[in-house]
Amino acid sequence: MSEKIKVVIDAMGGDNAPSAPVEGALDALKEIKDLEIILVGTKDPLDTELAKHEYDKSRVKCVYSTQVIVTGEAPVTSIQKKKDSSLVVALNLIKNGEADAVISSGNTGSVLVGGQVIIKKAKGVYRAPLAPLIPTEKGVSLLIDCGANVDARPEHLQQFAVMGSVYMRRMMGVENPTVGLVSVGEEKDKGNKLVHETYPLLEADPNINFIGNIEANRISEGAADVIVTEAFTGNVILKMYEGVSKTLLRVLKETMMSSAKTKIGALMIKGALKEKMKTFDSDRYGAAPLLGLTKLLLKSHGSAKASSFTQAIRQAVSFVENDMVAQINEALDKITNK
Amino acid sequence: MSEKIKVVIDAMGGDNAPSAPVEGALDALKEIKDLEIILVGTKDPLDTELAKHEYDKSRVKCVYSTQVIVTGEAPVTSIQKKKDSSLVVALNLIKNGEADAVISSGNTGSVLVGGQVIIKKAKGVYRAPLAPLIPTEKGVSLLIDCGANVDARPEHLQQFAVMGSVYMRRMMGVENPTVGLVSVGEEKDKGNKLVHETYPLLEADPNINFIGNIEANRISEGAADVIVTEAFTGNVILKMYEGVSKTLLRVLKETMMSSAKTKIGALMIKGALKEKMKTFDSDRYGAAPLLGLTKLLLKSHGSAKASSFTQAIRQAVSFVENDMVAQINEALDKITNK
Repeated sequence: MSEKIKVVIDAMGGDNAPSAPVEGALDALKEIKDLEIILVGTKDPLDTELAKHEYDKSRVKCVYSTQVIVTGEAPVTSIQKKKDSSLVVALNLIKNGEADAVISSGNTGSVLVGGQVIIKKAKGVYRAPLAPLIPTEKGVSLLIDCGANVDARPEHLQQFAVMGSVYMRRMMGVENPTVGLVSVGEEKDKGNKLVHETYPLLEADPNINFIGNIEANRISEGAADVIVTEAFTGNVILKMYEGVSKTLLRVLKETMMSSAKTKIGALMIKGALKEKMKTFDSDRYGAAPLLGLTKLLLKSHGSAKASSFTQAIRQAVSFVENDMVAQINEALDKITNK
Repeated sequence: MSEKIKVVIDAMGGDNAPSAPVEGALDALKEIKDLEIILVGTKDPLDTELAKHEYDKSRVKCVYSTQVIVTGEAPVTSIQKKKDSSLVVALNLIKNGEADAVISSGNTGSVLVGGQVIIKKAKGVYRAPLAPLIPTEKGVSLLIDCGANVDARPEHLQQFAVMGSVYMRRMMGVENPTVGLVSVGEEKDKGNKLVHETYPLLEADPNINFIGNIEANRISEGAADVIVTEAFTGNVILKMYEGVSKTLLRVLKETMMSSAKTKIGALMIKGALKEKMKTFDSDRYGAAPLLGLTKLLLKSHGSAKASSFTQAIRQAVSFVENDMVAQINEALDKITNK
């Protein structure tokens, strides 16, 4: 493909801005030929950061903004009031057709609201779900939805199942991705009202490979490729994953440091464990796409490092090359036209 | 206290029945003076198991039943149809005032339905929540509700907060137990409809120590003594805890076995790790009470070992000695009379 792919980076978003987004973007440039980067951020810190690196200046454009949305700001208000924030400016570049994808690791609520308000949902999409890849014993699964729109309806969850299946098939190369619906039991009659009403929709949909309800203890095993759930539960799942992992690793570390004997043992395991644990590092999976918009928005972790931005840019390029927006729309049409 | 405390054990429930419930009960007898045990189960296996042990026969009574409810049976049907199952017979003994508490590690759905249908809820209780203790970095928290009644209303969650606070105060000795409401963000305006409507009820209740919303990643840290949530989410939290722990321990074990070097390291850490991990063993915390009934029902893990039954019996005795049913009713009255 000879056409340029343009990716906008919110260079002020996240704990490690602007160094991580800038460094990650410049690393991606070296690797991906047809890539062009637009960095949006406050002039001084952005210029200072760029001055530290050698790069092909013809492929990097800076757009300067004067405001920054910080952690804890109310999502809707921040988007409405801070018109010259790096996030809003970045989203407007996408809206105006000046780029193909945008990546931000800023305030999650603001990113999600901004995406829907400024980029807008594609035609026929009820809701734009946030769909991170989560590590499992078998590889990765897509958890859809973990976003800001809670209290979903069954038809929303059906769209999530379809979008998630397209993502896993086209982006991750999973041939016939299995879809599981999170519930409190595997049997069809187990669950809450939303699950009861969603189950028959998924069961009847010939475009997805629905395997029924799955219980939360089987998610980390890798029980389904696409884990469909309402955003409140999705958020709890994602955060339990994070919390329990941190707690156990902390306990393991404490134990390893508890005596001279365990310290020696720890030295012998450390390397292998570190290597193995990389599989469970969320940074490795880049950023979570907000699916169902007219353009791609990727939300990376607040604590994303440079390598995570590079990975997010690879994802963005692959998303554009695979024409994912059209693919998702086409798949959703098959439901709507039934 | 000189009065006898009578605890009924469903000797046929769980993966290790009847050996684990029988052995656990007989161990408790040795330890607790005023305890009497009623074992309910099929004659042959129960008698065979008892014959293996030496015990004070004057304090153990057997009630024979002919049916067993197995895993996967539909809860309501199993309770209605299997009138002579160990579970139904055990629950009826409680209902008829022949004992103070009942413990079963049988089919969760059947235990929960049976508890509510046969034992009945105490006056003024909307719903009987299942409230397991979960291990945290600081000790334990009570997760309320993980039961079978999903789609709760705000006033249900308020009762859970009150019952959970009484439990942690009286049973666990926590002076002024903190109460957290599970949500997708800490701010008051974060959450779904249920959380939005429950927050002001908890905030205005002078009988609990409400600390606001808590996010799921802080549960394993021990962010609140009482974790209030609707049963669907509670179930997801409990199962994520279980699933992620299992996955990580499996990964750790694999890593430790991956080379000669790591195997030697593993030997040096193993003992300390095993000791430390006991804190995170759910068996240690006995069984989960179904609160708000007229008598105590304790549901222990399907895979509960003898020691877990012994611990559940200790819990039951403490529950009765602390007059918990009355304590909970009194605390709930303070809400209802407001």
